[in-house]
Amino acid sequence: MNRTRLQPGDTIGILGGGQLGRMLALAAARLGLQCLVFAPEPDSPAFQVTAEPIIAAYDDHDALRAFAGRIRAATYEFENVPAETVAFLEKLVPVRPGSKALGIAQDRINEKQLAREIGAMTADFADIPSEDALRKMLPQIGLPAILKTRRFGYDGKGQVRISSEAESASAYAAMRGQPAILERMVAFQSEISVIAARDINGTFAAFDVTENEHRNGILHRSIAPARIKPNAAAEAIDIARRLGEAMDYIGVFAVEFFAEDFSRREVIRVNEIAPRVHNSGHWTQDGAATSQFEQHIRAVAGWPLGATTMRASGAEMINLIGEDALAWQNLVAEPGAYLHLYGKAEVRAGRKMGHVNRLLAKRP
Amino acid sequence: MNRTRLQPGDTIGILGGGQLGRMLALAAARLGLQCLVFAPEPDSPAFQVTAEPIIAAYDDHDALRAFAGRIRAATYEFENVPAETVAFLEKLVPVRPGSKALGIAQDRINEKQLAREIGAMTADFADIPSEDALRKMLPQIGLPAILKTRRFGYDGKGQVRISSEAESASAYAAMRGQPAILERMVAFQSEISVIAARDINGTFAAFDVTENEHRNGILHRSIAPARIKPNAAAEAIDIARRLGEAMDYIGVFAVEFFAEDFSRREVIRVNEIAPRVHNSGHWTQDGAATSQFEQHIRAVAGWPLGATTMRASGAEMINLIGEDALAWQNLVAEPGAYLHLYGKAEVRAGRKMGHVNRLLAKRP
Repeated sequence: MNRTRLQPGDTIGILGGGQLGRMLALAAARLGLQCLVFAPEPDSPAFQVTAEPIIAAYDDHDALRAFAGRIRAATYEFENVPAETVAFLEKLVPVRPGSKALGIAQDRINEKQLAREIGAMTADFADIPSEDALRKMLPQIGLPAILKTRRFGYDGKGQVRISSEAESASAYAAMRGQPAILERMVAFQSEISVIAARDINGTFAAFDVTENEHRNGILHRSIAPARIKPNAAAEAIDIARRLGEAMDYIGVFAVEFFAEDFSRREVIRVNEIAPRVHNSGHWTQDGAATSQFEQHIRAVAGWPLGATTMRASGAEMINLIGEDALAWQNLVAEPGAYLHLYGKAEVRAGRKMGHVNRLLAKRP
Repeated sequence: MNRTRLQPGDTIGILGGGQLGRMLALAAARLGLQCLVFAPEPDSPAFQVTAEPIIAAYDDHDALRAFAGRIRAATYEFENVPAETVAFLEKLVPVRPGSKALGIAQDRINEKQLAREIGAMTADFADIPSEDALRKMLPQIGLPAILKTRRFGYDGKGQVRISSEAESASAYAAMRGQPAILERMVAFQSEISVIAARDINGTFAAFDVTENEHRNGILHRSIAPARIKPNAAAEAIDIARRLGEAMDYIGVFAVEFFAEDFSRREVIRVNEIAPRVHNSGHWTQDGAATSQFEQHIRAVAGWPLGATTMRASGAEMINLIGEDALAWQNLVAEPGAYLHLYGKAEVRAGRKMGHVNRLLAKRP
């Protein structure tokens, strides 16, 4: 079943109707593939670009069964889709990437363990099932440290920085009883990510390494290629390749790294794996021969991957968060600015409303 | 009313649901604009990429009124939309381009007269309201000539070549009583087209001139820039600018020319005006900073036009007609080939199923 190749006209099911699902559906349309989006929120941005919405809860088995009956393969646009939903669907239709990859990427401990297994470095970390464990592990991991929920964190949510041992009680309380992971904070020079893909035959392809700048825990700007040494870039891509293999991955995924510059050599540590298209890959829409969205759709359809070459010496992506989107009139009038808006009616603080891509005449 | 500027989230109405409407809707989605497609055919390709279809006849006034109530501006994807439909809609909502442009472009005589008025050359032509008129005008126009219906022709339909006076009766019969135009056949070296746009302020922009190769009356291949002398290219663009002004045009339009090479000087003659995005502009999707579809949506929305610079030294577009589309597996595996499929279920001879764009490292 996992060798299924779709034909033009076939339908891909997408769990999740946010901007990533929307941009996946737009990429699929160009290739003559249809998308059916399954999401609980009636005002999902992806519903605007597909013929019929499936509005249902992720644990609605009847709705999932009917959904599976109308699609030839499924994917998801976010890693917080319930693992049970994917496991249920997987019995009925190929789901790409599968539940194995999802199980790893949904859990920060699994992620880091896999990274270490394949020979990559990570920050020092410890499993924190209780407040007691936190108190015990804090001296071992060292300060400053960061306490994160193992699951369901994104855009800096579910994270607390710990600067002194006195903060451990309040930090643990912020986890609200959820299993947590304690990580030594990395004094990184830069954050980088690899947007990579694997097709149904295991062929691997990666875009140029991206460098990311966050503000308030949310991605603000990405540039490509990242300003790191060539051997560090090659190592990051090779780690992504090995992670993809270990997860039997089909589709696009992102690996985020911290890069520490020890002048003669850059050390990179795996921070997170996202089993999906990723905000730091949005520049590929205008800056690469194939966009990450098309690349994912190709993999999900069982088609060969597209070329990942850059279309300019450099590219940048800037997120439009909340009121940033009110500047659309300037952006739409700026020659060479590629404006992408997600069709979200309400501007809210911290909400990703769109992004703008620019090509750079020089390598960053 | 004709100064209306849309906001992100607003809805554009599109009359016609073919591949042009589909690609317009995809371009609008990127900019956060919604599209509502009005078309009589339930299986219209554009319905696959929009949230809700309006399936109704173009003369259904109730449906048109309801449609107008849900959109902030309207456009059309083909020039054979009834003029009355556009005139009716225009009273309710801005229609871009308006009925004046449509009235000219729908009629080959009006088109040629306008071209001559603004100082451009055309083939010699004569209005043919009757078989008698044909017999009288044939010696004056000269042979070989071509008899065309004044209206509703596309892709070589409604055209008959006349090589001798003996053929005039059968040629006239092929018009089935429709008003016709007789044109002297031009011994052209090449066919070229200008894809141009005007915004609501009258600002004009054109893409690089395109060179077109037809097979069986249907566009087979376009390349840009056209292999014509720079002064001929500049003249073609200037003619498009003057035609756009004369039509008070808002949106994208195409002007097709015949180019005759008299070695020291190229003579270009206006052949046709298409008041819409055009097959010979599909290369702009991957080969220009702004696609013709985005350009049209920008104009219809009252937004500024985008940059028309090429993204490579050259670009080509090849149409996938009928069974050509069965080669999709090769095309999707070809690095650097940008495949576009229209979501048409049934492969039929002569049916436009998709196209493929390629960038060229060298100017053609």
